[in-house]
Amino acid sequence: MLEQVLRSIRPPDEAARSQAQARQNSLTKPPGSLGRLEELSVQLAGVQRTPLPAVRRKAILTMAGDHGVVAEGVSLYPPEVTAQMVRNFLAGGAAVNVLAAHVGARVVVTDVGVAADLSELAALAPAGGCRLELRKVRAGTRNMARGPAMSPEEARASLEAGIAVLEEEAERGLDIVGIGEMGIGNTTPAAAIAAVMTGAPVREVTGRGTGLGEEALERKVRVIEKALESNRPNPRDALGVLAAVGGLEIGGMAGAMLAAAARGIPVVVDGFICGAAALIACSLQERARDYLIASHQSVEAGHRVILGHLGLKPIFNLDLRLGEGTGAALGIGLVEAAVRILTGMATFGEAGISGA
Amino acid sequence: MLEQVLRSIRPPDEAARSQAQARQNSLTKPPGSLGRLEELSVQLAGVQRTPLPAVRRKAILTMAGDHGVVAEGVSLYPPEVTAQMVRNFLAGGAAVNVLAAHVGARVVVTDVGVAADLSELAALAPAGGCRLELRKVRAGTRNMARGPAMSPEEARASLEAGIAVLEEEAERGLDIVGIGEMGIGNTTPAAAIAAVMTGAPVREVTGRGTGLGEEALERKVRVIEKALESNRPNPRDALGVLAAVGGLEIGGMAGAMLAAAARGIPVVVDGFICGAAALIACSLQERARDYLIASHQSVEAGHRVILGHLGLKPIFNLDLRLGEGTGAALGIGLVEAAVRILTGMATFGEAGISGA
Repeated sequence: MLEQVLRSIRPPDEAARSQAQARQNSLTKPPGSLGRLEELSVQLAGVQRTPLPAVRRKAILTMAGDHGVVAEGVSLYPPEVTAQMVRNFLAGGAAVNVLAAHVGARVVVTDVGVAADLSELAALAPAGGCRLELRKVRAGTRNMARGPAMSPEEARASLEAGIAVLEEEAERGLDIVGIGEMGIGNTTPAAAIAAVMTGAPVREVTGRGTGLGEEALERKVRVIEKALESNRPNPRDALGVLAAVGGLEIGGMAGAMLAAAARGIPVVVDGFICGAAALIACSLQERARDYLIASHQSVEAGHRVILGHLGLKPIFNLDLRLGEGTGAALGIGLVEAAVRILTGMATFGEAGISGA
Repeated sequence: MLEQVLRSIRPPDEAARSQAQARQNSLTKPPGSLGRLEELSVQLAGVQRTPLPAVRRKAILTMAGDHGVVAEGVSLYPPEVTAQMVRNFLAGGAAVNVLAAHVGARVVVTDVGVAADLSELAALAPAGGCRLELRKVRAGTRNMARGPAMSPEEARASLEAGIAVLEEEAERGLDIVGIGEMGIGNTTPAAAIAAVMTGAPVREVTGRGTGLGEEALERKVRVIEKALESNRPNPRDALGVLAAVGGLEIGGMAGAMLAAAARGIPVVVDGFICGAAALIACSLQERARDYLIASHQSVEAGHRVILGHLGLKPIFNLDLRLGEGTGAALGIGLVEAAVRILTGMATFGEAGISGA
């Protein structure tokens, strides 16, 4: 399943990109004067393989998982909060529900690895358009400071859980997807992945997460260094890195990104943890990168390193550090604006306006 | 009329701000994790004088005017384009129409000083929700390189045109307003105003506008320097500065900002030229500043200087340099998102979630 997806990812359509660029240059504005909006519209044309892309059917996929490494005291919140927040998503009370509604996107929460049984929640009527997908690979990862976070089979299963959810959503109709996560403690595996995949020192990619103090931050750095020493992941083996120091929701996000790229669906990436998933996805298939749009520059220290490594330029910086897909939702709104400019404006010819 | 508006501007409501901040801290997210969105929601609470602000009724006011200084060769486009673009706004084909529709805002175009008779256009049925207000003070400014751009009475009338339009829109129902402009050549008066009001050298605040080359940019700098030498505007007399080196649409924008502040309506400011209007408005009444939200950081060189002088931090930077209110429209979308977070999310108590 994974290999099939990796093989299906083509380069974006250059002809569609060129036609979109030509149209941008004919619209009633000085060429280039809408800056990044013009670039985004051209990227969408290439990804969707049409000179007139559309952003109507939108979804935020929020992947949830727990982390054995919280036993090392790397998070301010107790691990129970992951399951509590999943309930909050289903009740429509979380930030991602509000921001997804604002941009007209549905929210799908996937249990890839929450350390609580959520099976009774899936039957609940969705509030605020939020649906729960039960794809639990295991109930939280093992503590990566004391061995691999998961087995190679579990890592692969987490990727395939993400692929399956994306494909199910694509069948429902999907023009663009935003990817996000919920998982207490998950800036720790994200920082570990970032350090391995970019080669940056652990300290440089480790941040305060939900708000750690100085001492706790030091502890977090040491825990990640210990995890890397004991597991010795090989950066050229992304699946192995995911198994050694990853997270189940991180695997789910990477799988969803790859499946979207395989289907020509643009992917709006959320913040730091989602960026770590993008590192895994692009290492498995470098062509996936052309399908990714970085929504925002997060407060979390390592995010800049990840985006630089991937060569992605964030659309905005609002000092966000929440996750869930909140930045991705806002990003979808701006990408939709970009596409509307391309498809909705008059040309100089249509408007009878003198050129420069 | 102007003095009445200036007297009516109160400081924002501190109690409403505090209540909004307290609510932000109780919502199901780590406090502060939504960064600027949280700040914006608190600002809105203070401006609208309620702990639960609303962003439902939205308008973009686009002020249009022509500039005698185009005779000096400071723009790439011929002055006829101002009137042609007004027609394009009314037909719904311009970028501001598309982006305003995207965020659910109506567009009102005001002729404060277009050098063409637009009276027959006002009767046209509005397309794309765009209405034309006829408030022409004069048919374009005089050439500021050869004397004052307008008389003190005309400068005041341009401010009062903006006040009148804002008040009319407020009567129709208005929770938030975005301000923008159209006027071939108007980065020249904007740069002149920026130089006078901030004390920055002309060269530092003068940019390429719609796309001037190196030589034309040098000419533009010399034209502005000449205009400042011959007019010698006094930075402490904002009305005098507007008359000497301003523009009619710039006066209209400043008037609309002041009238909005007087009514407790938040103002989303567009780019460089709109920023020059904000300098005039805040010089006439410094309390107006608390009502302003800078939408974006423009490509135009002097915009950073203006925002720094006003102490405004732009919400985003998309390399825009179009004007019309396009950045303000996108800004309204993000401010609405901020307010929805404040009013739409569940609290920790409501969701039964463990705190940090």
